[in-house]
Amino acid sequence: MDVAIIGGTGAEGFGLTLRLARAGHHVTIGSRDEGRAGTKATEAIEILGSDALVDGAENTTAAAAAPVVIVTVPFEGAAAIYESIAPAITPETVVCDCTSPLMASVGGRASHALHPWHGSAAEFVRTLLPHGTRLVAAFHTVSAGVLRALDKPVDSDTFVMGEDAEAKRIVGDLADDIDGMRWVDLGGLQMARIAEQMTPLLISVNRRYKIHDAGFRMTGLDDWGVPGA
Amino acid sequence: MDVAIIGGTGAEGFGLTLRLARAGHHVTIGSRDEGRAGTKATEAIEILGSDALVDGAENTTAAAAAPVVIVTVPFEGAAAIYESIAPAITPETVVCDCTSPLMASVGGRASHALHPWHGSAAEFVRTLLPHGTRLVAAFHTVSAGVLRALDKPVDSDTFVMGEDAEAKRIVGDLADDIDGMRWVDLGGLQMARIAEQMTPLLISVNRRYKIHDAGFRMTGLDDWGVPGA
Repeated sequence: MDVAIIGGTGAEGFGLTLRLARAGHHVTIGSRDEGRAGTKATEAIEILGSDALVDGAENTTAAAAAPVVIVTVPFEGAAAIYESIAPAITPETVVCDCTSPLMASVGGRASHALHPWHGSAAEFVRTLLPHGTRLVAAFHTVSAGVLRALDKPVDSDTFVMGEDAEAKRIVGDLADDIDGMRWVDLGGLQMARIAEQMTPLLISVNRRYKIHDAGFRMTGLDDWGVPGA
Repeated sequence: MDVAIIGGTGAEGFGLTLRLARAGHHVTIGSRDEGRAGTKATEAIEILGSDALVDGAENTTAAAAAPVVIVTVPFEGAAAIYESIAPAITPETVVCDCTSPLMASVGGRASHALHPWHGSAAEFVRTLLPHGTRLVAAFHTVSAGVLRALDKPVDSDTFVMGEDAEAKRIVGDLADDIDGMRWVDLGGLQMARIAEQMTPLLISVNRRYKIHDAGFRMTGLDDWGVPGA
């Protein structure tokens, strides 16, 4: 699958780039700076080997070319980025928001949640996209370091939420392609109000226990993914 | 250890009663109705065997007699219960709040969070207790059914938060005594703003996947408990 990762030069986006390209997907790293995107794409190919399908492009170009657009940017930059890519989003494009609003965006702590008027970052960015965009939220809780440690399976699950069941399945399939990761359908986009707060929770745990890669696994069922499947 | 479980006649409180009594603790089930508390204590002994140390008392009597008071009541009833037991709380008493504020308290859904003015239920009930009470919040995310299924270890972790490190350790030790459970120190009581929302999250997962006992495990470290211990 062709996937654009907006903010793919950042630690989280680059980690997702490596994991998805290793699974055989064609990943376009998006950046405001086309040159920087290209440099990181070269770095990814050096890590993964020359068979890896990774290239770089300016954000809007990257978003226009891919059926799945994953956005991994800090919350304080999300509005500008979403406004810039909005013209490139088609009615078919699946957009996956990974933003968690943290007090760090306004000079506070990353272990404290910030509460957007709209309820969650995902519900806020929905207002910046064309009406009816197939928007999904996911990948809030997997650490960049865990994604980057390609020799180890990812020991954590991810929540996926949104109104479009097929879009959730498409993003969920990408999560399944990350070695070790499972996905849990949390329901509508409003559930991002809770899922996004798992990020400051994990940051708090990391600081308290002096680790870098706290995550979580759901218990109660062996197979998650599409409910009832 | 002597433990009072206020609301111990409810499903969650009765599950904790069984698990803690089975671990050898003396549990006093508290209820507004002393007779009902006694009936449930008898039921616990029938389940656990005659060696189990379980008795019943009116809430305030139960709270006055125990160094650890665990409160497992629905959010809409918490204020009245806390006001009634407050006179029985001493400066040494460790109070453990297990309340999660859900929209169900005001006629909405249990899978939707309710946001108290104070930030969390734990911070709200703190205002109803004597100043300086050793208040801890924990046990939000373990299902009553899982606690009740005594033949199986509990496959989930619990967050513990509060300002008093020793009080957290005392409650954490109780969590450790529940077969399979581990405890994760989440920091100060304010973190209950996030931890309490794990309850509606798990309720949403339960409904979506048609199960009853979704839980979570932390990953990233094998041993949790007291940070750095």
